[in-house]
Amino acid sequence: MEFKPLEINERLPYLLRRENIARYEGGKVIIGDRRAYPFERLHVTCDSVEQVAEAIRTMVTQGGGSWVAASYALAMLASQERRKPKERLRQILNEATERLKGTRPTSNHLHRLVERALKAGLLALENGEDVEAGILAWLEAKRDDIHIRSARMGQYGADMIPDGAGILTMCFAETAFLLGLVFARDQGKTLRVYVPETRPYLQGARLTAPSIHELGIEAVLITDNMPGYVVSEGKVQVFFTGADLVTLDGHVVNKVGTYQNALVCRQHGVPFFPYCWEPDHKHPGRESIFIEERDPADVRQARGAATTLEEIQAYYPAFDITPPQFVSGVITLHGIISPYDLARYFGEGVIADA
Amino acid sequence: MEFKPLEINERLPYLLRRENIARYEGGKVIIGDRRAYPFERLHVTCDSVEQVAEAIRTMVTQGGGSWVAASYALAMLASQERRKPKERLRQILNEATERLKGTRPTSNHLHRLVERALKAGLLALENGEDVEAGILAWLEAKRDDIHIRSARMGQYGADMIPDGAGILTMCFAETAFLLGLVFARDQGKTLRVYVPETRPYLQGARLTAPSIHELGIEAVLITDNMPGYVVSEGKVQVFFTGADLVTLDGHVVNKVGTYQNALVCRQHGVPFFPYCWEPDHKHPGRESIFIEERDPADVRQARGAATTLEEIQAYYPAFDITPPQFVSGVITLHGIISPYDLARYFGEGVIADA
Repeated sequence: MEFKPLEINERLPYLLRRENIARYEGGKVIIGDRRAYPFERLHVTCDSVEQVAEAIRTMVTQGGGSWVAASYALAMLASQERRKPKERLRQILNEATERLKGTRPTSNHLHRLVERALKAGLLALENGEDVEAGILAWLEAKRDDIHIRSARMGQYGADMIPDGAGILTMCFAETAFLLGLVFARDQGKTLRVYVPETRPYLQGARLTAPSIHELGIEAVLITDNMPGYVVSEGKVQVFFTGADLVTLDGHVVNKVGTYQNALVCRQHGVPFFPYCWEPDHKHPGRESIFIEERDPADVRQARGAATTLEEIQAYYPAFDITPPQFVSGVITLHGIISPYDLARYFGEGVIADA
Repeated sequence: MEFKPLEINERLPYLLRRENIARYEGGKVIIGDRRAYPFERLHVTCDSVEQVAEAIRTMVTQGGGSWVAASYALAMLASQERRKPKERLRQILNEATERLKGTRPTSNHLHRLVERALKAGLLALENGEDVEAGILAWLEAKRDDIHIRSARMGQYGADMIPDGAGILTMCFAETAFLLGLVFARDQGKTLRVYVPETRPYLQGARLTAPSIHELGIEAVLITDNMPGYVVSEGKVQVFFTGADLVTLDGHVVNKVGTYQNALVCRQHGVPFFPYCWEPDHKHPGRESIFIEERDPADVRQARGAATTLEEIQAYYPAFDITPPQFVSGVITLHGIISPYDLARYFGEGVIADA
């Protein structure tokens, strides 16, 4: 099936629609505020690169929203500084790119895409064309491309869902996963998705469950200690997540909790399919993975309410690593590939750049 | 090693000391309020059976505190009604016992012990002795006995802890487990206990972590999606929990999350030891286990703060079942018994009644 980008956008829930992730309007960057969702549907309006950088740093947006906001910020800057001499404008854009990359020091994804936005702008500058327009043209084409490719991946995922399936997920697996649910429903299948709340930041409770519910698909919120019981009761037939990174040898790095859920699924014969465009060539194996530790204070609270005493020590590893023996297949741009065969499919270098 | 009950009491943290669980003072029952802990150290003072029953029902106390509060309530009632004719007093005490049992319809433990308190009172009544004093004498002897037996179980547990161990637990495993930590420390071992917060009621964060910290033992709070990562990193050498119930064939029923943690531990060669006085003869196997489902609204909040929209469906199974192949041994009154051999050790009927 072929999709048009705008048709895909209309199938998505509020949170993932292009206009709500981030948009460029009246010379300002308007970013959907994921911190307020689902309780409020707010946007943050930025008229400087610094404001956009701060919005990204403070988690106004995250995941697939960061590079969009950052790229719009470069377009806005190009417009604001359009009267500057060419060499000066080049320098300004380069500095802004570094500032925007610094908001997520370890996100290759953000770094690669904001550099592509810069490249589009500098090419326009070189050719004596409008820099703002050059960046925007690249950006909208890229957003189209991402939606079309996500829809293709969603179709692969939908085919892995049996009719009447219970589905387990973790954290917020975004567009391809949600499209997979929509397409499975289009195929006439009934579904129920068990959504662990994903402490401490509660992306499952705040983002995933409301988004699935908005699509008219049954979402059942559970706490992070319940997947083992739910799966052991036979309520789950397939486990899907996103992946922050997949190594060339098939290790899946994703939100902490993914690994223990994958263990539970293996024990009960439930397949696990992470969505990931392609493996990361910078990581041949797990040895080079650095698991980010976040502020332990986040573990001592839930939605701002203290859960224990301030003097209690806490530990907040943000991600974990699921080895390939627990992965049934990685849902990539090129189909569902065995975690053991990724290097052969993707060994020649970066194919997609999103 | 032999212990005197009062020495044991002094080794315990605030929450588990006899006077803070519940006491009988000036003709009133004073119950430690576990809902307020650790943020406040409050007590609820009751001067009627109805007030004590409501305190138990509304979770002022729980676990090993319920039967103590209920038994003191019977002693208080016997004193209040001491001028009533013998037959009328017997009837009043019987009715009160039923009311107190009704606060936890599925707790065999509470039912058995409050019936023992009633029996002690009725025996005194039969013999023309003071009923209040009869119940109190039984109750204090029982509390002594529980502390002495818990200390013995704690010694078995302490011997399973290697020096420098990382320990995983779940929920609030109470006296025997905490004494096990104290004794291991007495043996000169250094310990660190990883405490999952135990959503949605957060007993790990609120009760377990502060209690271990108060004992001067290192407690590290994590969220319920982190044990898999923590264990996979080699940080854990032994996993201890309490158990709400162990079947005669070695299935362990405990707070939801225990099962998935046991799976993780098995995968990484970490032994799992639940503390349980003895198996439950009413349950030869898992078939007769009914897993209580609690109010789904509890899953949509954390410490009173909403985590998702009200219209999102949720599911709250309170317990799970860990099969014997994941259990390294059950720490019982008679030592650490293989889950496969419980029926032989305990097959003749109830040995202890607490």
